Amino acid sequence: MKQNKYDDPAFFKAYAKMPRSSDGLKSAGEWEVFRAHLPKLFGKKILDLGCGYGWHCQYAVEQGADTVVGIDLSEKMLSKARELTGKGKVILEHCAIEDFDADEESFDVIFSSLVLHYVADLSSVFRKASKLLKSKGVLCYSVEHPVFTSNSSQDWHYENDKIQHWPLDNYFHEGKRKTKFLGSEVIKYHRTIETHISALLSEGFEISSLLEPKPSDEMVKKMGWYDEQRRPMMLIVTATKR
Amino acid sequence: MKQNKYDDPAFFKAYAKMPRSSDGLKSAGEWEVFRAHLPKLFGKKILDLGCGYGWHCQYAVEQGADTVVGIDLSEKMLSKARELTGKGKVILEHCAIEDFDADEESFDVIFSSLVLHYVADLSSVFRKASKLLKSKGVLCYSVEHPVFTSNSSQDWHYENDKIQHWPLDNYFHEGKRKTKFLGSEVIKYHRTIETHISALLSEGFEISSLLEPKPSDEMVKKMGWYDEQRRPMMLIVTATKR
Repeated sequence: MKQNKYDDPAFFKAYAKMPRSSDGLKSAGEWEVFRAHLPKLFGKKILDLGCGYGWHCQYAVEQGADTVVGIDLSEKMLSKARELTGKGKVILEHCAIEDFDADEESFDVIFSSLVLHYVADLSSVFRKASKLLKSKGVLCYSVEHPVFTSNSSQDWHYENDKIQHWPLDNYFHEGKRKTKFLGSEVIKYHRTIETHISALLSEGFEISSLLEPKPSDEMVKKMGWYDEQRRPMMLIVTATKR
Repeated sequence: MKQNKYDDPAFFKAYAKMPRSSDGLKSAGEWEVFRAHLPKLFGKKILDLGCGYGWHCQYAVEQGADTVVGIDLSEKMLSKARELTGKGKVILEHCAIEDFDADEESFDVIFSSLVLHYVADLSSVFRKASKLLKSKGVLCYSVEHPVFTSNSSQDWHYENDKIQHWPLDNYFHEGKRKTKFLGSEVIKYHRTIETHISALLSEGFEISSLLEPKPSDEMVKKMGWYDEQRRPMMLIVTATKR
């Protein structure tokens, strides 16, 4: 059963209030790093796995991509993406990542932003990405960092209401985590960094970069994210099909 | 100034009592993973950066390596290595990793076991390894995991004398850590996983594996290492020269 938390009205409403939803990519702490490691998008065929509001699709259009396909399991997300991207080059499809299919070697670049930690079988996503990408095509994805997902609490350790450190535990125990996000219970899947890299290598990718973005000093100041410089929250990987 | 802690008599004496010193590789928790990811050593020219007691050099000889060069900054370590490896194929040199040099493309495989977290400039080691390796040669190294080195305390968080979790903090603050190891103060250098991978890619390597070994259930039982399955302590990377 694929998780479709974003069609839950309360969850969707809370998500809409996040800076990254209302303001778009410029308010996403990891965006500058993600963008800097994307290949050139001009003239390319792009697929966005879990496109959400469609911010990444829209960015690809602005960069002169030839075609952009965005898929998402949530109708509410797609409805927002339709508003944002208009009737241009973006083809939006209502589909789970696990179910999506297309012709072999039909894309140059596949994005996936903060979605794959909701997917139970990572290897099968990489296998499909490898099939759908042309040779030398690039998969570029972000997930919550394994250090962040390992404990279900996904919160700091406090003493007297003051943050002390990030509590790490259960790192090698991969699998489901029942976590709280935006006031709702959400299932995420914890995996080690080894698992990400090994799965990519097994599915015919070469590692092009492994990034642990921390928000820039400017973002930290603007958003008040001082503690975000204490432990990694995100992992970004770019991998090239051999 | 290169750190030569292993020639400090008290430190060396304490090190000699560690299972990995007295029993060798079979008592090193990460060895099975390290070994499994080594390329074939038969007929190869091997360099061991920071050879210590010489266990890895001796293993290479047993696997039929053609020549094995082990270097170490500690005379006491080299003296032990001389005892262990005898007058065979192992050439032992008294030299800091930072100062070692040899002809370009003169090695097939370079090892380094739990040493590079003592070295201030990681990129320069990778640059040298890239120079010394033949094309398609392999660098295989282990270090203490960034999650382990980030806090100077390098210890669990306890409540009422009971381990609660591993406290993670200062992850993005790379550089010196004054830590306690075997009762002595030791300087280690903390770096993120991103820094390891980016430096390897910049110096002309392809990532062949990234491993976060946990001791096997058998080792955990034998050594009583139950908490070692809660957070990663080691990072092993193998990288192939393009």
